Amino acid sequence: MTSHDRPGPDTDETLIPVVQMRRPRWGDPERVTELPGAAAALAGDATPNPGVDPSSITPPAPAVPASVRADLERLVGDAHVADSADARIQHTRGFSTPDLLRLRSGDASDAPDLVVYPGDHDEVVEILRICSAARVAVVPFTGGTSVVGGLAPDRSGFAGVVSLDLRRLDRLVEVDDISRVATLQAGLRGSAAEALLRERGWTLGHFPQSYEGAGIGGYAATRSAGQSSAGYGRFDEVVEGLVLATPRGTVELGTAPRSAAGPDLRQLVLGSEGVFGVITSVRVRVRPAPETRVFDGWRFATFTDGATALRRLAQDGPLPTVLRLSDEAETAVNLADPGQLGADATGCLVVTGYEGRAPEVPRRREAASEVLADAGGTLLGEEPGESWRSGRFAGPYLRDPLLDAGVLVETLETVTYWSGLHDLRAAVTAAITDTLTASGAPPLVMCHISHVYPAGASLYFTVVAPFGADPLAEWSAAKKAANEAIRAAGASITHHHAIGRDHRDAYHDEIGALALDALRAVKNTLDPAGICNPGILI
Amino acid sequence: MTSHDRPGPDTDETLIPVVQMRRPRWGDPERVTELPGAAAALAGDATPNPGVDPSSITPPAPAVPASVRADLERLVGDAHVADSADARIQHTRGFSTPDLLRLRSGDASDAPDLVVYPGDHDEVVEILRICSAARVAVVPFTGGTSVVGGLAPDRSGFAGVVSLDLRRLDRLVEVDDISRVATLQAGLRGSAAEALLRERGWTLGHFPQSYEGAGIGGYAATRSAGQSSAGYGRFDEVVEGLVLATPRGTVELGTAPRSAAGPDLRQLVLGSEGVFGVITSVRVRVRPAPETRVFDGWRFATFTDGATALRRLAQDGPLPTVLRLSDEAETAVNLADPGQLGADATGCLVVTGYEGRAPEVPRRREAASEVLADAGGTLLGEEPGESWRSGRFAGPYLRDPLLDAGVLVETLETVTYWSGLHDLRAAVTAAITDTLTASGAPPLVMCHISHVYPAGASLYFTVVAPFGADPLAEWSAAKKAANEAIRAAGASITHHHAIGRDHRDAYHDEIGALALDALRAVKNTLDPAGICNPGILI
Repeated sequence: MTSHDRPGPDTDETLIPVVQMRRPRWGDPERVTELPGAAAALAGDATPNPGVDPSSITPPAPAVPASVRADLERLVGDAHVADSADARIQHTRGFSTPDLLRLRSGDASDAPDLVVYPGDHDEVVEILRICSAARVAVVPFTGGTSVVGGLAPDRSGFAGVVSLDLRRLDRLVEVDDISRVATLQAGLRGSAAEALLRERGWTLGHFPQSYEGAGIGGYAATRSAGQSSAGYGRFDEVVEGLVLATPRGTVELGTAPRSAAGPDLRQLVLGSEGVFGVITSVRVRVRPAPETRVFDGWRFATFTDGATALRRLAQDGPLPTVLRLSDEAETAVNLADPGQLGADATGCLVVTGYEGRAPEVPRRREAASEVLADAGGTLLGEEPGESWRSGRFAGPYLRDPLLDAGVLVETLETVTYWSGLHDLRAAVTAAITDTLTASGAPPLVMCHISHVYPAGASLYFTVVAPFGADPLAEWSAAKKAANEAIRAAGASITHHHAIGRDHRDAYHDEIGALALDALRAVKNTLDPAGICNPGILI
Repeated sequence: MTSHDRPGPDTDETLIPVVQMRRPRWGDPERVTELPGAAAALAGDATPNPGVDPSSITPPAPAVPASVRADLERLVGDAHVADSADARIQHTRGFSTPDLLRLRSGDASDAPDLVVYPGDHDEVVEILRICSAARVAVVPFTGGTSVVGGLAPDRSGFAGVVSLDLRRLDRLVEVDDISRVATLQAGLRGSAAEALLRERGWTLGHFPQSYEGAGIGGYAATRSAGQSSAGYGRFDEVVEGLVLATPRGTVELGTAPRSAAGPDLRQLVLGSEGVFGVITSVRVRVRPAPETRVFDGWRFATFTDGATALRRLAQDGPLPTVLRLSDEAETAVNLADPGQLGADATGCLVVTGYEGRAPEVPRRREAASEVLADAGGTLLGEEPGESWRSGRFAGPYLRDPLLDAGVLVETLETVTYWSGLHDLRAAVTAAITDTLTASGAPPLVMCHISHVYPAGASLYFTVVAPFGADPLAEWSAAKKAANEAIRAAGASITHHHAIGRDHRDAYHDEIGALALDALRAVKNTLDPAGICNPGILI
């Protein structure tokens, strides 16, 4: 998604309230997003496709046995069990473009039968026991922002599906100021957690594009990566401990920050997407709330030049807090006046952001700037960086009006070693372009690097294309081609979107049959009835 | 162990040759270590205990069935299968003080029946298949330096024990100069790997005290941490990929440096101590060979003051490459003249080391020095740091002459969050002191911090005590008391020594029954016959 010239609030992340999104539309329902003229122009001759009124959708009759419902109501209280059409639709699938297209077409066939809101960890364990005994599938739900089908489990063979919404587990349980760790309950939204931490002088520093919607449990279960990952790390890197509720009881991990006591089982639960049980709290590393921050824009002649500069910073430092490189196409869209959207590329934009302690930030900025200049970058000043910063959570708001206008917008991402990055980018771009062109309309494919490591980096693709008669099938073919290109290049099927259902086959190819067997053995041990998010991941 | 005034080679780690140690003595057999006068004085009235001549020890008759031996010889060649008393004794147990005491007493009851030296990964898989079918236990062996009983599997119910010595898997397979990753075979000794990498301009930067003996596979299987962990990271932090041979085939992990594709299964294999199979190669992060290095010594009035200074560096930076703090007792031993060994404490020594690029090192040293001075440290100049550096692999050489003199020297370590560090140190010190005092001789208990993280740090204890009639029982009681104190304080049973047999019960207490079940399920899946290092870890 592009970020320039979007309507929206001041997106200082500390000021963003928790948003109760109304499916199928992203974000704050009060915030009306007009399609910028440029994006509207891109729609061209696309056929408008406003979608049905969500309140008119009737999900299938709820299937959970009455005795199970009674047991759940006894456990958590009547007020915390819901099966209204609205509650069920608000827990149906996630926010991938296919998810939105299905709901916009009135298809709520994946709606859970019941939504249950437990009040604490012990209730979660007990819910899993009840559902295990009755063979009712359970989907953990925090922000509900999956873009990979992580919220649509297999129904086959189950006596129903319960959406386990953790929103009542919303406490900052404890802050250890000496060790700089905080215990957060899993139902806290990211923005709420950040607000609670800032009150105590700390930051989690985790700002994915889904920040307005996503929750702490989701971050952990899907190995989320935020836009400030260069400075604050991926979510899986800041988790020091966690508590997992399973149908067989509780697993607590994280005795010490690092240890040689066997495998690091935290890393077995992180990324497990609810299939071993439900993460109910995490102990995370926190840092002092930043005293200052500043963003810069840099121009590089080519994507290759920009990537080399990013690699130098990732390998030899110093790392900015935010570091991203847009390719020519994305740069053109980002820097263009609305009227010039899609204009010819004029180099590649690098955004750098620095935040932290007042004396440290200018030193780091100066040292990183030296590297960027030495690598061929031209400083564009603060405006392009600030523009990116202020609009960085606005992208998803653009998708709904584009879909209304008959334009498909979707993203996908991958990660590989630096030495294979450019071949991977070329292969994925070609796969998407060829497939969508063959099915009717040549797409605009944009790419950026937004997460760097010493050994490699992510690639994030944004695809925009007017859709034809069957957008679901058209995107499905493009996504399949992209997945195949990613695997053929030896890259990982996802950098931070996780597996869900949509990446399952590619994931199994990626880890191999024996590793998959091992994961299934863990699942069978912790979830013998197989009710935890069945069909997801494994 | 103390480091001052030791005999030994220049211990620039790039110059240390691979040492073929001769059990039960540590290190280069050509290097005669005289007990310094001070240490000899410490022995006091202890009863000398020179131990039996290892060449006089006869291990039990080899038990592996002849047909299995024939299959293994056919597979790897006759020359690569050995069952001489010497070969078996050189693969018997590891280097804990109890291990040494047993072998010094002539007890080779844990000797493997056969030593097999495979030539490549496929041979390892096939050996595991052959042994699986015949229910012969397999112990992976690289450096053989375990101090937790990791090389002494259960024999009960098995048709014999094979030591799988990986020394022929000794290649630097590939270096990706762009991504800064290198693929190392598991049988490479650490010093050999470092030498191969330095030829190409790279360093692994992994220098545990076992550096002269330990191997790459052991580093990975036990989550080793080197003395330069502040600068280069723990071994589990530099592994980007690995290949695991199991009785059911091969698992390859590490498609990308970081990914959201399910759990991080690398972290399930790292620390698995051979119970899921045999790690045959790792892809590790490498860095440019340092252009320069410098070490400093600092004095802090108390351990608490020093720990606070280390915490500031770990949390806010900048981190030296080496960072350690000795308590009063260890400082006294380290800084004393030999004649004053054990003298009263005069504050606490912090050693800082910096290595890297020439322009970067002085900047980092200056910034870290500012923090240390601000935290109350007094710069002692380069001598104490250089003294530590030059003697840092010499400590283990001192143990054999001390044992000869009837003095027990053993180490143990743990790790916790910063907020609990001082209580943990007090509890463990008291547990060891009380137990050994009760059994006869008050010990000298020294402690240091040598690995720091933003959220916590390790504690490493060195215990010196003249032993009585039954040193094994005396140390066993002290170790048990220390383990209980560690677990009662909520800390991890090991920071970098791993679990083996000696920490197994405490480990099971640490992770809990359900997590242990999950690990057992993984083992049953990859090693259905249970022949991989049985009785270790789980």
